[in-house]
Amino acid sequence: MAGSPSRAAGRRLQLPLLCLFLQGATAVLFAVFVRYNHKTDAALWHPGNNSNADNEFYFHYPSFQDVHAMVFMGFGFLMVFLQRYGFSSVGFTLFLATFALQWSTLVQGFLHSFHGGHIHVGVESMINADFCAGAVLISFGAVLGKTGPAQLLLRALLEGVLFGVNEFVLLHLLGVRDARGSMTIHTFGAYFRLVLSWVLYRPQLEKSKNRQGSVYHSDLFAMIGTIFLWIFWPSFNAALTALGAGQHRTALNTYYSLAASTLGTFALSALVGEDGRLDMVHIQNAALAGGVVVGTSSEMMLTPFGALAAGFLAGTVSTLGYKFFTPVLESKFKVQDTCGVHNLHGMPGVLGALLGVLVAGLATHEAYGDGLESVFPLIAEGQHSATSQAMHQLFGLFVTLMFASVGGGIGGLLLKLPFLDCPPDSQCYEDQVHWQHEDKAQRSLRVEEADTQA
Amino acid sequence: MAGSPSRAAGRRLQLPLLCLFLQGATAVLFAVFVRYNHKTDAALWHPGNNSNADNEFYFHYPSFQDVHAMVFMGFGFLMVFLQRYGFSSVGFTLFLATFALQWSTLVQGFLHSFHGGHIHVGVESMINADFCAGAVLISFGAVLGKTGPAQLLLRALLEGVLFGVNEFVLLHLLGVRDARGSMTIHTFGAYFRLVLSWVLYRPQLEKSKNRQGSVYHSDLFAMIGTIFLWIFWPSFNAALTALGAGQHRTALNTYYSLAASTLGTFALSALVGEDGRLDMVHIQNAALAGGVVVGTSSEMMLTPFGALAAGFLAGTVSTLGYKFFTPVLESKFKVQDTCGVHNLHGMPGVLGALLGVLVAGLATHEAYGDGLESVFPLIAEGQHSATSQAMHQLFGLFVTLMFASVGGGIGGLLLKLPFLDCPPDSQCYEDQVHWQHEDKAQRSLRVEEADTQA
Amino acid sequence: MAGSPSRAAGRRLQLPLLCLFLQGATAVLFAVFVRYNHKTDAALWHPGNNSNADNEFYFHYPSFQDVHAMVFMGFGFLMVFLQRYGFSSVGFTLFLATFALQWSTLVQGFLHSFHGGHIHVGVESMINADFCAGAVLISFGAVLGKTGPAQLLLRALLEGVLFGVNEFVLLHLLGVRDARGSMTIHTFGAYFRLVLSWVLYRPQLEKSKNRQGSVYHSDLFAMIGTIFLWIFWPSFNAALTALGAGQHRTALNTYYSLAASTLGTFALSALVGEDGRLDMVHIQNAALAGGVVVGTSSEMMLTPFGALAAGFLAGTVSTLGYKFFTPVLESKFKVQDTCGVHNLHGMPGVLGALLGVLVAGLATHEAYGDGLESVFPLIAEGQHSATSQAMHQLFGLFVTLMFASVGGGIGGLLLKLPFLDCPPDSQCYEDQVHWQHEDKAQRSLRVEEADTQA
Repeated sequence: MAGSPSRAAGRRLQLPLLCLFLQGATAVLFAVFVRYNHKTDAALWHPGNNSNADNEFYFHYPSFQDVHAMVFMGFGFLMVFLQRYGFSSVGFTLFLATFALQWSTLVQGFLHSFHGGHIHVGVESMINADFCAGAVLISFGAVLGKTGPAQLLLRALLEGVLFGVNEFVLLHLLGVRDARGSMTIHTFGAYFRLVLSWVLYRPQLEKSKNRQGSVYHSDLFAMIGTIFLWIFWPSFNAALTALGAGQHRTALNTYYSLAASTLGTFALSALVGEDGRLDMVHIQNAALAGGVVVGTSSEMMLTPFGALAAGFLAGTVSTLGYKFFTPVLESKFKVQDTCGVHNLHGMPGVLGALLGVLVAGLATHEAYGDGLESVFPLIAEGQHSATSQAMHQLFGLFVTLMFASVGGGIGGLLLKLPFLDCPPDSQCYEDQVHWQHEDKAQRSLRVEEADTQA
Repeated sequence: MAGSPSRAAGRRLQLPLLCLFLQGATAVLFAVFVRYNHKTDAALWHPGNNSNADNEFYFHYPSFQDVHAMVFMGFGFLMVFLQRYGFSSVGFTLFLATFALQWSTLVQGFLHSFHGGHIHVGVESMINADFCAGAVLISFGAVLGKTGPAQLLLRALLEGVLFGVNEFVLLHLLGVRDARGSMTIHTFGAYFRLVLSWVLYRPQLEKSKNRQGSVYHSDLFAMIGTIFLWIFWPSFNAALTALGAGQHRTALNTYYSLAASTLGTFALSALVGEDGRLDMVHIQNAALAGGVVVGTSSEMMLTPFGALAAGFLAGTVSTLGYKFFTPVLESKFKVQDTCGVHNLHGMPGVLGALLGVLVAGLATHEAYGDGLESVFPLIAEGQHSATSQAMHQLFGLFVTLMFASVGGGIGGLLLKLPFLDCPPDSQCYEDQVHWQHEDKAQRSLRVEEADTQA
Repeated sequence: MAGSPSRAAGRRLQLPLLCLFLQGATAVLFAVFVRYNHKTDAALWHPGNNSNADNEFYFHYPSFQDVHAMVFMGFGFLMVFLQRYGFSSVGFTLFLATFALQWSTLVQGFLHSFHGGHIHVGVESMINADFCAGAVLISFGAVLGKTGPAQLLLRALLEGVLFGVNEFVLLHLLGVRDARGSMTIHTFGAYFRLVLSWVLYRPQLEKSKNRQGSVYHSDLFAMIGTIFLWIFWPSFNAALTALGAGQHRTALNTYYSLAASTLGTFALSALVGEDGRLDMVHIQNAALAGGVVVGTSSEMMLTPFGALAAGFLAGTVSTLGYKFFTPVLESKFKVQDTCGVHNLHGMPGVLGALLGVLVAGLATHEAYGDGLESVFPLIAEGQHSATSQAMHQLFGLFVTLMFASVGGGIGGLLLKLPFLDCPPDSQCYEDQVHWQHEDKAQRSLRVEEADTQA
């Protein structure tokens, strides 16, 4: 175990040195490249004639705080369901996300806002960085309990770059619309990690099976995460859509979609449950699929009915995925998906991208009026017809899947490098490997378990 | 128990079929009737001349998120105090509230914003729907642990209609002012459920007595709910009052009232507690009475002193209610009120309505100036004198009590329909009936209990 | 124990009577002195020509809610880590903070906004009151588990006055800039309590040693607090800085500083940890040092790199403090600091004040442009040179340390008054002294412990 002699002094220093190196490198890059933008710099900002531009910070900032709360509290606690992996779940969430947001400030800055030799940052950068942190945390869910913190950090480094490049290709080169990220966040994050998980397949993982379940209170902690994600998803989807009707509509569509996916999840969970009883895993996860499925289309004229229908579909598909597909994924496809990322982000993400194809293909000047400019600028400018926009959306999905797969494969091979510190098969899902804490309850559980094995 | 043969296949399908039917019906009604309003529709919205009307969404949206967080996290976790009913408390909260918000969008839409054959939705609809979800969750508190999810759903269906009609009668027909809901939300929700609870009285409930208490950590989870309610109550009361000084004053009054009710609760809890010690139940609930008691009057010129005094009174009355009145309510009046809804919402709600009568009766043109138009439009227009406004407020309280009582009675009879799946007396307050989860700790508790009974 | 005859009837009544007296006195002072300000009073508010002044409430209010959430949820749950002191930690947080916010409304009102014989309150008063509550809760951390509620209340009374006077001297008499409070909040709160803790030193405290640790789930509850503090700290620092670029820059700097302090904490915690493992106490606390260290300078032109560097430094210093300095503090200096307040608020607060000295000393007209007026008004007006501003900042730190030390000393002597109810050495860190609750798990722990001692 943790104290065994197999853990050489070199491995002990791996995490501290990697952190110090990456933080140092990031700081140097910040010193050279990152500057306040003209709304943040004391010398560049001039309070104007009370135009909305002056107020933009106040329109964005509350959404930023909602996104921030959702990413850190939501993803942090959603993964606390494992009985002995709570410290790692919430601790590594904070750890990974804080690195990802610094790193993606640089990557996104170079791609999107690099001019005059500098990256200029403001509230939009903070929101974008939080989005990238969200994608990194989604991937974390699929390898939860099976990787060490140094591996996670390297993976976040790679994923941060690929996330930025994929987003840049989709939004800027292909003109794809993907307001808040069925493709760029959910599909990308999920398939990146599933491929990676496939590469890292561990046939002996059942040695840690006894720790893979939840206990009563760990499921309640996970529900804190679920509800945080649930309540702040409208802000997550709306945070960077067009000011005015665009944000308003996005929030409203997400709100209805989540409501329908929750009801759908309860219906299906009871339907497929043993003796008609509900399963907490479904409620913790599938209830949220409604937020994922409208990630592309919530800024479009989806209609309130469309939002309900999409959410309901996503909730049911996701629940069925947990029940029937996750076991197959492990036994047939050799993919060990701890959190069911494929059900919550993968399938609903793909569904959401396809829904975006459909709604974009139906876009007309009558339905959008002046708003066409902000939702589909390429159609408004006559560069795309509705049909060609739809085709571009579809192509964007394939590009995302490709980036995620190739990236996940490379990432998996990288993490197999033998010198990286990684929990052995029999010590997965176990806080003791990474944390000094041991309390009475844990100690007695461990003793009991040792007795059982003896 | 759950696995017993008494649960016929028909009952197993009750919840899924009811969910699917209600979600389907709601979706059809949405398709036919619900449309984006002119601030949400891409074709109807025109960014204006930077008037405040353009910014209205940004003034409302942060409050919406606060209300949303309060309703789902707050009520969800407040009820997790029961030792073996945590999954149901937080799960059914999500379940009930998501149905209630879809349903009340329809009901309130037909009553308030139906024109041109359509209901028009925007951020105000989302806030209003969350308020109705709040009332439904308040009622949930009184039958917590004693009803099945299908029963809860039917009850929410009925309560959603009555809530909407009662609100419409009060605000639109009687011209009553009830900013955020001492009457329409708290009094209505509490007495609806108390009457319902009286109809559903179960003399044999002590069979489940051993599960009715809390354990150490379940009380800490409940405190998450309490603090969420506590911190976001100013936004809850202010979310839909008049923009500007109205919202500002409402938030300020609620803030002071909550502070005083918390101090009052600590004082009284220690005073009546065994050996001068505090009781967690009081802190979890009575500390919040200050938010309820200013639900009607917080938008009025209550004065900061008035807010402190009202909050202090509510905190003390509510604490005394938990200590002395709840036992009597069960033994003499045959009302089993699991969460003490009568103490937190019932009495403080009625007090709040009476406070509204008083403050309305004292309204003068000097005290309100131009603001009279937004707080008491009927007085400003000369249709009501201050005294007649006060009389209307009082009459509104009686109407609310009547709606709640008759509705609760009908609801109770409805839920007694024999084919509805309902936990037996010996299986109340027990997650096992509704959820598949069983962990080691629960199993050992159950074994221990079986030993004790043997 | 609690039920022992040593607790005379007089002591039982101490808390209720003190609460009732203080609440009564506060209410009377509110009735005489506190009035709505011109943006809250219905008669004084006139919706203007759509100027930003009209919208100010909407620019401040979301930040107020963030601060409110951070203070109550954040500090409340951060201290729940003790295994048997969760009720007191979160309950007394609510209790102390609600008194502190009423009391500081009065104290700050008399010092800052007293004109025409009245204190005028609005959203800024609410934010300021929450800041004072924050300082009071920081101090609470250092005596957690060792003082009774009546003692806490008296201490908050004293600290509220000293906090207000210290802030007034710094900001208004010395012209010190301390946007959100490296000096006025963190340094003051920490050293006030450390001196107080030194005066109240208990040599026999090891009698309660067995309860001083955490258990697995109590640490997870504490992480709720940590993440709340983490996510809302940008709003905490920005809430009352200058509208526009000032708030924008403050939030951004805090965001980067926190990210770097978290990575630094993980690096150092693994470096100094036994066998390279992490320590939950470091993550819960030191990860937040980045918010403290930029409390003075985050509104200045710190640059994004400066924010990263400051945060990283604070995270490492704070982690080393937990590892090496806290044990020395107790053994050599006789200061028992339950929460490690010195590491999280004390050292980073002093560092933050010194950073403010440095950044102020480097201020130039070029770097700040028109913004100099709002960040350093005295430099802009020519009353101070950058160097003399820096000297004033440094002097402000000494004044704060003096106020905190003398105040803490007086407070400690006051709390030693023999008639105050205080838990005995063997009953510290124990909810049973203050709360009626006793569940099965606790009872069995107590029995087990009795056996061990026998």
